[in-house]
Amino acid sequence: MLAEIITIGDEILIGQIVDTNSAYISKELNKIGVQVYQITSIQDDKDHILQALANAQKKADLVIITGGLGPTKDDITKHTLCDYFEDHLVENLDVLAHINTLFSKHLNRAPLPANRLQALVPSKARVFLNNHGTAPGLWLEKENTVFVSMPGVPYEMKYLMQDAVLPSIVKKFNRPFIYHKTLLTYGKGESQIAKIIEDWENDLPSDIKLAYLPALGKVRLRLSSKGLDEHLLQKNVDTQMQLLSDLLADIAIGYEDETSIEKRIGSLLTNRGQFLSAAESCTGGGIASLLTANAGSSSYFKGGLIPYATGLKIDVLGVDAALIKEHSVVSIPVVEAMASCSNKLFGSDYAIATTGIAGPTKGDGRDEVGTVCIAIASPQGIISEKFNFGKARERVVSKATNKALEMLHKEILKN
Amino acid sequence: MLAEIITIGDEILIGQIVDTNSAYISKELNKIGVQVYQITSIQDDKDHILQALANAQKKADLVIITGGLGPTKDDITKHTLCDYFEDHLVENLDVLAHINTLFSKHLNRAPLPANRLQALVPSKARVFLNNHGTAPGLWLEKENTVFVSMPGVPYEMKYLMQDAVLPSIVKKFNRPFIYHKTLLTYGKGESQIAKIIEDWENDLPSDIKLAYLPALGKVRLRLSSKGLDEHLLQKNVDTQMQLLSDLLADIAIGYEDETSIEKRIGSLLTNRGQFLSAAESCTGGGIASLLTANAGSSSYFKGGLIPYATGLKIDVLGVDAALIKEHSVVSIPVVEAMASCSNKLFGSDYAIATTGIAGPTKGDGRDEVGTVCIAIASPQGIISEKFNFGKARERVVSKATNKALEMLHKEILKN
Repeated sequence: MLAEIITIGDEILIGQIVDTNSAYISKELNKIGVQVYQITSIQDDKDHILQALANAQKKADLVIITGGLGPTKDDITKHTLCDYFEDHLVENLDVLAHINTLFSKHLNRAPLPANRLQALVPSKARVFLNNHGTAPGLWLEKENTVFVSMPGVPYEMKYLMQDAVLPSIVKKFNRPFIYHKTLLTYGKGESQIAKIIEDWENDLPSDIKLAYLPALGKVRLRLSSKGLDEHLLQKNVDTQMQLLSDLLADIAIGYEDETSIEKRIGSLLTNRGQFLSAAESCTGGGIASLLTANAGSSSYFKGGLIPYATGLKIDVLGVDAALIKEHSVVSIPVVEAMASCSNKLFGSDYAIATTGIAGPTKGDGRDEVGTVCIAIASPQGIISEKFNFGKARERVVSKATNKALEMLHKEILKN
Repeated sequence: MLAEIITIGDEILIGQIVDTNSAYISKELNKIGVQVYQITSIQDDKDHILQALANAQKKADLVIITGGLGPTKDDITKHTLCDYFEDHLVENLDVLAHINTLFSKHLNRAPLPANRLQALVPSKARVFLNNHGTAPGLWLEKENTVFVSMPGVPYEMKYLMQDAVLPSIVKKFNRPFIYHKTLLTYGKGESQIAKIIEDWENDLPSDIKLAYLPALGKVRLRLSSKGLDEHLLQKNVDTQMQLLSDLLADIAIGYEDETSIEKRIGSLLTNRGQFLSAAESCTGGGIASLLTANAGSSSYFKGGLIPYATGLKIDVLGVDAALIKEHSVVSIPVVEAMASCSNKLFGSDYAIATTGIAGPTKGDGRDEVGTVCIAIASPQGIISEKFNFGKARERVVSKATNKALEMLHKEILKN
């Protein structure tokens, strides 16, 4: 059971947007045992779309298409599908009624003629109503291949996938099981990890695949297997994952999908009834933003302060001005004071503090661009470290964020 | 001059990572007049890689490949390139010396054998040293097509593109000019915009293409054209863009690439010598994080408070407890108080405040999930509004962030 994803839109090919739809669709298809063997992104160009559909049909049982279903003139997917399926557009009364309802309910106005055109669908298509937009999902079949077309707006596509497309695929196709398990590690590079697990990797059964997924300051290790016996599959992968986790016990954070480092921190603190706060200068709210992206963060995250201007570190956070004057704003004594002041200000048990020079200019610090000090204040005391994370602003912020969470996680586990 | 991008990696096809490399590469190629007609993502599978290379060669003058160059066993791109080019791997002494230097300088240890394998390259390849990692870039030619292979780690790939790949492409190929200009609008949907600009769009010369790029709360409108006379191209697009901007004067923020709404806010405030702060409850630091992602943000952004726990809105921010008791924490009076307290606490001229229920559970508010109150305090007073942004947590936060920036931008322009 093979699938191809085709994403349509000039904006992808000129790099104006990042195609996040493909990753979402791939992940969801994988969960139900459908293997995506190719993702193809092409322009809003009729001939190229027709050619991509024909190429996909040669190999795929399922082709998922997103994009080009909007109400404006640059959207040509629907007309091109009619060409490919030797079909024509007809007005679908259910879609029309749905569009009218959406407009009267949410926008308090009648749809424009362009919105009503969204009710035109290929006559051969099975139609899925889009509860979050006007463009419906379309299901068409040719020979033994199913083609599904959805709008490119991510949340509309996601709801259509969950509500209609995935259930229809499950009903239509027999699928094997695909099982992945991913270990999240912080603090060692992929070659160092490869050396530690070398013997284990050499002995790994050939039906289980290992992949290394490195990112700034962290490496994910994924085991994958495919087969018809779901129970056996999981058992074999879980057994190998346990061996791997044991080998990497000092750098492993937990299993992904079940967790991320911020979720892991959250559940540890929630279970202990402890609270966290953050005083972020150079990370500018990025840590708080990650923590609060998870539902339930209010049960362990008190809040954060972004004392971006140096004066605020003194006036609002309560750091001693003399300390800043003596050691400079990017220094171990100052970051440690920031962390302990954060616990005081927010009434938290743990506090993360960051101060640094994200660049590209040196600002009011005495250190080089990329210098970042991070401190963690815990009920047991304060730890801190000074780093240089290089010259690219985005990378400095991202590395500082990951390192701070890694340090916090270790501290919580110690206590 | 056509290009195809091939990204290689199982992690892309199972949706574990979002492929951001393609967008970056497309954008950079576009700037130098190279049109990307297709992006193809495939697994770490030898036969499939070989087939993708052959397909790309049929149509493309340039094929950019990323991924599969790591030091671990799942990385097979280099060996597969040898098959495709009927070549073999040889040790490159420059790469080896570079690897040794990198390890002694940054890691204070000798490279592992796996790291030294990175110095093996196809004998026919022109080699680009990777200043930020061990895997070099490779440039190979077959008949009239150039193939460039780079590591998939985004920052390594970016530096290789800038330092070596783009200059080599410019030198090798004659290219036409491609010119895009994008208008950023906030506050109206794409159908509404289409209606306003209908006559203009019908009269648009056929060599200029218009695209609508809708996102949560904002729509970008892109004009594109391609040709040999760079000056004429820019002049024609700029003329049409001026007409379009005039038609959409009340919702246009500025031109993208030159700006984003947060950069625009930044330059307005910097020019006036005014300062901004943020008191973010439901947006959890997301607004501060966006603002501080831009270099130079310290010249207008004082800082922010994330009073996630209700008590902090009283104790740290200074909102009157009685106000919260009377109106509930998600209410117009409370959000207005938050904004004016933020100006006091941070000594800023403008303040953004957000309070709401991001979900999925109702928390301590009396309102439905998705309810968000936003206020902007300015030297002229306070404005505020209550919204419902739906049920998906991520979308609520993202819409609230965009709406708050839109409201702030309008307020600044008024004053």
